[in-house]
Amino acid sequence: TYLLTLRSKSPGGNGFWLVDLLEDPLPGVGTYEDFNTIDWVREKSKDRDRHREITNKSRQSTVALLRSLSDAFSGWLLMLLVGLMAGALAGGIDIAAHWLTDLKGGVCLIGFWFNHEHCCWTSNETTFQERDRCPQWQSWAELIVGNSEGAFAYIVNYLMYIFWALLFAFLAVILVRAFAPYACGSGIPEIKTILSGFIIRGYLGKWTLITKTITLVLAVSSGLSLGKEGPLVHVACCCANILCHLFTKYRKNEAKRREVLSAAAAVGVSVAFGAPIGGVLFSLEEVSYYFPLKTLWRSFFAALVAAFTLRSINPFGNSRLVLFYVEFHAPWHLIELAPFILLGIFGGLWGALFIRANIAWCRRRKTTRLGHYPVIEVLVVAALTALIAYPNSYTRMSGSELISELFNDCSLLDSSQLCGYKQPVNVSETGVGNSLADRPAGEGLYTALWQLALALIFKMLITVITFGMKVPSGLFIPSMAVGAIAGRLLGVGMEQLAYYNHDWLIFRGWCSPGADCITPGLYAMVGAAACLGGVTRMTVSLVVIMFELTGGLEYIVPLMAATMTSKWVADAFGREGIYEAHIRLNGYPFLEAKEEFEHSSLAVDVMRPRRGDPALAVLTQDSMTVEEVEVTTHYSGFPVVVSQESQRLVGFVLRRDLLISIDNARKRQDGVVSTSQVVFTEHAPTQPPEAPPPLRLRGIMDLSPFTVTDHTPMDITVDIFRKLGLRQYLEWEGVVKNFTGKKRVPWEKGWEPLPRCAAIVSASALFCSRAAGEPRQFWQEVKPRHKRQAGKFN
Amino acid sequence: TYLLTLRSKSPGGNGFWLVDLLEDPLPGVGTYEDFNTIDWVREKSKDRDRHREITNKSRQSTVALLRSLSDAFSGWLLMLLVGLMAGALAGGIDIAAHWLTDLKGGVCLIGFWFNHEHCCWTSNETTFQERDRCPQWQSWAELIVGNSEGAFAYIVNYLMYIFWALLFAFLAVILVRAFAPYACGSGIPEIKTILSGFIIRGYLGKWTLITKTITLVLAVSSGLSLGKEGPLVHVACCCANILCHLFTKYRKNEAKRREVLSAAAAVGVSVAFGAPIGGVLFSLEEVSYYFPLKTLWRSFFAALVAAFTLRSINPFGNSRLVLFYVEFHAPWHLIELAPFILLGIFGGLWGALFIRANIAWCRRRKTTRLGHYPVIEVLVVAALTALIAYPNSYTRMSGSELISELFNDCSLLDSSQLCGYKQPVNVSETGVGNSLADRPAGEGLYTALWQLALALIFKMLITVITFGMKVPSGLFIPSMAVGAIAGRLLGVGMEQLAYYNHDWLIFRGWCSPGADCITPGLYAMVGAAACLGGVTRMTVSLVVIMFELTGGLEYIVPLMAATMTSKWVADAFGREGIYEAHIRLNGYPFLEAKEEFEHSSLAVDVMRPRRGDPALAVLTQDSMTVEEVEVTTHYSGFPVVVSQESQRLVGFVLRRDLLISIDNARKRQDGVVSTSQVVFTEHAPTQPPEAPPPLRLRGIMDLSPFTVTDHTPMDITVDIFRKLGLRQYLEWEGVVKNFTGKKRVPWEKGWEPLPRCAAIVSASALFCSRAAGEPRQFWQEVKPRHKRQAGKFN
Repeated sequence: TYLLTLRSKSPGGNGFWLVDLLEDPLPGVGTYEDFNTIDWVREKSKDRDRHREITNKSRQSTVALLRSLSDAFSGWLLMLLVGLMAGALAGGIDIAAHWLTDLKGGVCLIGFWFNHEHCCWTSNETTFQERDRCPQWQSWAELIVGNSEGAFAYIVNYLMYIFWALLFAFLAVILVRAFAPYACGSGIPEIKTILSGFIIRGYLGKWTLITKTITLVLAVSSGLSLGKEGPLVHVACCCANILCHLFTKYRKNEAKRREVLSAAAAVGVSVAFGAPIGGVLFSLEEVSYYFPLKTLWRSFFAALVAAFTLRSINPFGNSRLVLFYVEFHAPWHLIELAPFILLGIFGGLWGALFIRANIAWCRRRKTTRLGHYPVIEVLVVAALTALIAYPNSYTRMSGSELISELFNDCSLLDSSQLCGYKQPVNVSETGVGNSLADRPAGEGLYTALWQLALALIFKMLITVITFGMKVPSGLFIPSMAVGAIAGRLLGVGMEQLAYYNHDWLIFRGWCSPGADCITPGLYAMVGAAACLGGVTRMTVSLVVIMFELTGGLEYIVPLMAATMTSKWVADAFGREGIYEAHIRLNGYPFLEAKEEFEHSSLAVDVMRPRRGDPALAVLTQDSMTVEEVEVTTHYSGFPVVVSQESQRLVGFVLRRDLLISIDNARKRQDGVVSTSQVVFTEHAPTQPPEAPPPLRLRGIMDLSPFTVTDHTPMDITVDIFRKLGLRQYLEWEGVVKNFTGKKRVPWEKGWEPLPRCAAIVSASALFCSRAAGEPRQFWQEVKPRHKRQAGKFN
Repeated sequence: TYLLTLRSKSPGGNGFWLVDLLEDPLPGVGTYEDFNTIDWVREKSKDRDRHREITNKSRQSTVALLRSLSDAFSGWLLMLLVGLMAGALAGGIDIAAHWLTDLKGGVCLIGFWFNHEHCCWTSNETTFQERDRCPQWQSWAELIVGNSEGAFAYIVNYLMYIFWALLFAFLAVILVRAFAPYACGSGIPEIKTILSGFIIRGYLGKWTLITKTITLVLAVSSGLSLGKEGPLVHVACCCANILCHLFTKYRKNEAKRREVLSAAAAVGVSVAFGAPIGGVLFSLEEVSYYFPLKTLWRSFFAALVAAFTLRSINPFGNSRLVLFYVEFHAPWHLIELAPFILLGIFGGLWGALFIRANIAWCRRRKTTRLGHYPVIEVLVVAALTALIAYPNSYTRMSGSELISELFNDCSLLDSSQLCGYKQPVNVSETGVGNSLADRPAGEGLYTALWQLALALIFKMLITVITFGMKVPSGLFIPSMAVGAIAGRLLGVGMEQLAYYNHDWLIFRGWCSPGADCITPGLYAMVGAAACLGGVTRMTVSLVVIMFELTGGLEYIVPLMAATMTSKWVADAFGREGIYEAHIRLNGYPFLEAKEEFEHSSLAVDVMRPRRGDPALAVLTQDSMTVEEVEVTTHYSGFPVVVSQESQRLVGFVLRRDLLISIDNARKRQDGVVSTSQVVFTEHAPTQPPEAPPPLRLRGIMDLSPFTVTDHTPMDITVDIFRKLGLRQYLEWEGVVKNFTGKKRVPWEKGWEPLPRCAAIVSASALFCSRAAGEPRQFWQEVKPRHKRQAGKFN
């Protein structure tokens, strides 16, 4: 028979995955259904067999050698492509978002496709003092009523601002709803879940990519309190997933593809901040599940390529790689650690509070009628944001502009209100604030401080209801903005305190009059890191990203003190970061690697069937007919045993593989009828001559299923699942008496709320035992409604 | 009975490690013998039980809560201490080595404890042009014959140089021999092995620390072609290991201690180069085996603390954090990638060649009489080095000085011969080489190039025989020196080529006359990275270390191109880096995580006993006497089964635990005689009333041994060992018929060369099957001869 022939090609018994993959005898065998967990061991085994085959062949001919070489370098080529594509997309997003954001305020007369800055660059009439003003750029009031001053013009501008904000927000939410429901949110929780081995078809497909790219630009431009960093990670992962289809090695292997996706996550952060090393560490620390060293090296390469692609596109127009370029002139003093730690505490408190409030709000959205009107929700929030944000210049500007202004030293932004210091008496009147020394705050600065305080409260409240709406929304920029405002306020406070109290003990010795002792920009940066740390619980990667922004090791210590404090404070209120909280809220099957498993139960407590339940459904190796096998397909997989009486374990078979094989045999193999015997042994048993030919299925059986004793402590059990990436294993008690069959994972059946989850049986089920009782409406809600979405790309 | 009482405290059956650890009923149970592999699963399980216990208790009283808090923060405190201690030691080593190196040339008259630079700082008579000359610093010729010029003075200086070099080398090797044989070499191969779970008592002890610190200074000062970077990693790990003894949590748990050691490796590189992020990545990429995220964060903290401690000691006198501070003024051009890749190829070739030559030489040392005279060997090599090195100024200076000079742009070291360019005609005569533009090479530069070429050949040859001698010796600096020389030579060549051929196609457009187009210092840096990469096969960490030296993302692309090429070229000649090669040479049991396992065998092929061998030695759960148990102790561990007839597996017992328990019972428990029954069941079987009381040993039995089927492919088997860190597991065939007992690991019995190694049975044995046939003399040779060494610290 067909399968037998294939088996005989790879004697030894362990090469059976090889057969599946290289020869592809039965399409579908070895693949997974949607919303299922992959089996890492099987996938890696498949890849190793494939690699071995290619290596062996390469010794035979030059063509095969070349094929082997191209196979070895295909990973690098793929990384190069991912870097180029993600970098180019990020550049496009930056340029488009910049233009649309400016469009809310006015339009360029030379060409409507110029943004404000470019418009005034193109004109030669700009002076250094007023770079922002040029006759070519006209606000809407100028254009409509021909007047840029006065209350009426202000109202026209105000209304136009709200109009554009509503338009962009409406387009964003409508596009998401119509083309790719998966494009909403930040995407990082889902990517974490996918990287841990879950399959969500279409989540990283081309429709998601196109929709997310366009709607991200719209959402950012609409002025909503959201950032583009998280979605950029999603975009980069979509690119990687689509490009994977060019290479057989990655298309056919879920584990290999996840390596590429891990690297793509690094690429996403790399282009978001211009911080390649930070991106790689972000992927390692925050997102990835399986991160071998090879991936480390490749992600670094891809992140660099992406960063340089972005730089050659030069969207910020300053040929800087980083999003916020910072240069401080004064060192910090040890005493300043106290306010830095204070910022850390603030960041931690805010992080914990934000997570609670946001999760509560999202749960409300899921459980009440609110969730049924996503478009109206977005419009209301956008209108509210625009209405409140416009009058305050710090909320009117985009999040990244705000952060950039708050981070900077006053010597660099003299025209800003934030630098409205009084001139000290002994400085000559010619230089406009050239001195770096501390100065008393003037009128302008006090106004700025009031506005900042109001902006802080507004940002804190609006971000809670914004994150989780059905538009692409990242959390990095809003969190950093909150922290940066708080930090700048504290920094200016400290500066004034030091200026007026040089003689205090804490300032004596390092802060003499006329010296530049306190840098409020540094406080803003530390505050931003603290708040971002409190919300996401990132640590090393956060500090490294910030390090790459400043480029000096000097400021790592304040950053580290703040992030560490922030993490500890936030952890005291709950150990989950925002991404983990959203994973739990949405009921994804995810085994958190950072979390310690505190139960002291044994594997026996979670195995199914429990003691006393009806016996486990098993297949026998040579005494069942096709019909009998097909009847017992209520479960996802079956142990194969010698016979019902002597339950010696032979192997494990997945339902999906079984059904596909039987189907296929019916079509291709003559004489397979319902009474044919299903045989898992190496040699068919002797049969009466009139019996139909047996169906041999040893090829699809896993000959080495994992087993543990029922006395294994729960924490070791969890470790095995995490580290080996198993999908299920079998438990045995004494002799192999009581196997645990694999139940269907609950979400296949439409998410009935189970009182207690399926069991230790599968990795996803293990997760469930933790999240039992959570509402699981997400999948029903977001499940693709469009054919094109559920289609080709996994 | 005693054990029974303890068991009853922790019902549930999985808490038995808890009993061992917290109550410590039998000292020794759960510990390991020297030259054995630890069981990661058991250690982590122990720690989790401990943690759970403390957490549970903390709810009961305030004291317990405080204890729980101090326990949680003890890891951070430990990291702080490690950082401080390692930073301070590194500072001391730097200062002492600097002083002793200068002592070879002369002495300071103000105080002999000043080095050359300090001596001339202290004096005020230095001019800017001749910073190095001051009357207070006298060369040996001036001091002895009163004359600093002429052939006689030169010879006196020459002889004094050789004398000091020999003295330092002699002291170094004698100290190593007398006090701590383990202090020799770089230590990184051994640390890799230890981190993977092997136990080498005394390798990280206080005598090793003291000896290594002192002899490292001497070895570096003696002018031998070696660096201090590898040994600094060893020193940092010794610090960490010693400080671990302050905290119960780390003292008693081998797995937890290894987390700290991983962080210490990061600290070592951090202080060696002033590159904390690079250090952490080095530990992650190159050294560590088990590196959870928590460790990432803590190593980063420790690495930073160490770097700042070092900076406050300020051994280089320039308040720079980094070893080689580099600042380039010109960007690189895309065409220059060609020479950079050429340097990568050179680095790869040299790396592969060096590893082969060095391993061949080390094997020769092991197998011939050469190895019996370590002191004479060191003296001969030191004499040879000094003799050849003195006449050439580039070999006379220390390795790090050389690299620093080669890395630098000419604008920074105008007085150096390397900058002996001719002045271009159109530059005014006042500025001495202030122009950064490319210039034609002059007399001085040509001399320098010749000297560099000779230095290159000398360094390449001498490093091969130096690395592996019985003095502390690192490989980073010599490798980098070779690469830096080659790179500088190529860089100057390119510069001259571009200067004289501005009109060539490849130079047109970016290298016009008078422009500063080519930076030879960058070539030196790229060459250094390429050679280091070729030797160690580091990738990301290497690029990040170099990035931290320059601080600019600009130069990452050249570095990356060179290291990538270098790694690929070197890998084509053999996939092992120098550390892996030395691990294999020394026969350490190490399972390389990077290496793919290419065999297509099954677990059944490596299990012991083989099919046909006599049956496995097992214990029965309730039918053996103490005497019978004691007789069967030829193996390291035994499966416990129900009875000899029905071999149902109950658990697994280690020989060491068994013997300690029986010994202890004999001493403490009344009535235990040779005919007492050994019972592993929960309830003792009924016995005749006159029988001696049974000895209950369920407490030391592992109730959840790992098992796999004999059909498991070898690569999955290896994966299980690597990822879970097992020490052994059991194989089963069909029903649990054929267990694999654990043979003694070969090095316990004195290293007979086995024809084929012990088996899949233990992690170390698995390694053996690869290294079978290698000579294993190292342990006999280095085994501690001194009581103080074998003593307290593991």
